[in-house]
Amino acid sequence: MRIALDTMGSDQGPAELVAGAVLAAGKSDIEITLLGDEKQIQSVLRQDQAGHLMHVVHTTQVVSMHDSPIDAVRKKKDSSVVVAFELLKKGEVDAVVSAGNSGAIMAAAIKFLGRLKDISRPGIASVFPTMKGPVVVMDVGANVDCRPNHLFQFGIMASAFSQIMFGIEKPRVGLLSIGEEGGKGNALVKSAHTLFQSSGLNFIGNVEGRDTFQGNVDVIVCDGFVGNVCLKLSEGLAEAVQSMLRDEIVKTFKAKMGYFLARKAFSNFKKRVDYAEYGGAPLLGFNGTGIICHGRSNKVAIKNAILVADELSRNKVNDHILKMLQNNIAQTGIDDGQVPAGAA
Amino acid sequence: MRIALDTMGSDQGPAELVAGAVLAAGKSDIEITLLGDEKQIQSVLRQDQAGHLMHVVHTTQVVSMHDSPIDAVRKKKDSSVVVAFELLKKGEVDAVVSAGNSGAIMAAAIKFLGRLKDISRPGIASVFPTMKGPVVVMDVGANVDCRPNHLFQFGIMASAFSQIMFGIEKPRVGLLSIGEEGGKGNALVKSAHTLFQSSGLNFIGNVEGRDTFQGNVDVIVCDGFVGNVCLKLSEGLAEAVQSMLRDEIVKTFKAKMGYFLARKAFSNFKKRVDYAEYGGAPLLGFNGTGIICHGRSNKVAIKNAILVADELSRNKVNDHILKMLQNNIAQTGIDDGQVPAGAA
Repeated sequence: MRIALDTMGSDQGPAELVAGAVLAAGKSDIEITLLGDEKQIQSVLRQDQAGHLMHVVHTTQVVSMHDSPIDAVRKKKDSSVVVAFELLKKGEVDAVVSAGNSGAIMAAAIKFLGRLKDISRPGIASVFPTMKGPVVVMDVGANVDCRPNHLFQFGIMASAFSQIMFGIEKPRVGLLSIGEEGGKGNALVKSAHTLFQSSGLNFIGNVEGRDTFQGNVDVIVCDGFVGNVCLKLSEGLAEAVQSMLRDEIVKTFKAKMGYFLARKAFSNFKKRVDYAEYGGAPLLGFNGTGIICHGRSNKVAIKNAILVADELSRNKVNDHILKMLQNNIAQTGIDDGQVPAGAA
Repeated sequence: MRIALDTMGSDQGPAELVAGAVLAAGKSDIEITLLGDEKQIQSVLRQDQAGHLMHVVHTTQVVSMHDSPIDAVRKKKDSSVVVAFELLKKGEVDAVVSAGNSGAIMAAAIKFLGRLKDISRPGIASVFPTMKGPVVVMDVGANVDCRPNHLFQFGIMASAFSQIMFGIEKPRVGLLSIGEEGGKGNALVKSAHTLFQSSGLNFIGNVEGRDTFQGNVDVIVCDGFVGNVCLKLSEGLAEAVQSMLRDEIVKTFKAKMGYFLARKAFSNFKKRVDYAEYGGAPLLGFNGTGIICHGRSNKVAIKNAILVADELSRNKVNDHILKMLQNNIAQTGIDDGQVPAGAA
């Protein structure tokens, strides 16, 4: 598999991203194309003596976190993110990984890849750690105002992702709501509930915010507004919890000693909840594979994102999504004699 | 002030709630009316020799967590929650505190109290702990499908609450969204943003999920679906973090020793984030004061909820809300020559 890595526009700078690519290249037979400022890229590759493992494509423009996504894609034609998606469109690479402006990544995907046939709204999935295993949440920000069928398709796409990435044969799909009964929720969720119920997915009904971290569901479906709020709330709370605990601990010598002795537990915990372990958020529903990494991604996160991109391309995630979509529409028709409104 | 406490229908049972009332009665000159099964209530009061501090109203029916709210209020006329709101309507008490079925509490408030003049949608506020001070989030579950003006009024009501409870003169109001710029968010939030901008509230613009726990905002406004998801997600994550840390810590003796030494820090931390410290979620926008406590509330949470109910009644929170509502409509008119659609 050939993976393009956009090395520009992240918080960490190109060196950290190139270091991530070096780690990934050491791990498998992935061919990596690095896009960005050639001088900066080469200086890292020379240090690591890893130049022979990678292609470098020099680009002259950078899309920053503050650029308007649409303008960036329209005007910065020689930016690393735009050129990366152009390569993907031309079939010169199999997937794109970027830790840049996520709006611009979405806009580039829309422009160069387009929607997968029969998918109304591509979206962004994200993997949350839980007390048992990972859970896939979709959508986490691409679609803020959704119709029921959009949520239904998020369920299909996230299930396909869960099958490929985590090897779960029949992922349990939950619809994020504010009560377990089907009648609970807002108008959008109530309508989506009936679509899921008549589908062939392993739908376990509504789940609540507190179920997110219990690990009793494999896929959580929500609109992109709710999903993005949840993602950022979780990040903020996890940080606040750590910071408040640290505050309390440094207050006394005894507690400081305690922290010193228990620090391995803290670092294991941190590893367990670290987004870097899961390697970024996949774009699903486009004609091509893209991974959006956190702007603060370190080299481990980038390495993992490249491995995820490789896994998704290798297993033809998009063919899989289309097949699941067809099966579920057919099954709906067979099961109850009719396709629910909006499910087709 | 005279506060009615519904002692039935919580997870902990009447004894814990009555114990909370005893704590509150010891703390101030509040007159407490306990509603529920008289035998169970009196047995606690006898133990505590606190019977002379309280009135007891025997009720024969219990609304459980599984009852349909509307049916419960319609059919269980002699339930503790229904009788409590009847007393409030008759003016025999000044506020109601309940840890029962929150839907039924809302339904009883709607039936017996009715909406405050000029308030379109009463709602439920909740206090979240942050790294600095508490933040008031509204709505957390009463209104799942909202219009922009509903969000605007949540901002007014939560500001009034913040002023009274936390003595903040000009509470900073943020609109929960998925980007800081006014143009970011779903259709509802974008429209609400313009209402807030032209109001006299101390509106600081959009805030994101991660700002919730930073303590840089005093009031966070969202619809009841998003607010409820956030509330339950936060509870679930805080529990998961504690459980995962405990898991890691018990793995080695050294870490266990560390935990032992640092346990005071953990308990301080727990106290800092404990919902019990904030004493329940106030119903705002009704002709009367009600507090919904968590179903798992212990006696400390109940005591604090009673003190909050006392504080809100004593400071005439509803008069304050109406005044703020009038001032802000007026100010909008003066500032930009017109009242934005839906703000009146």
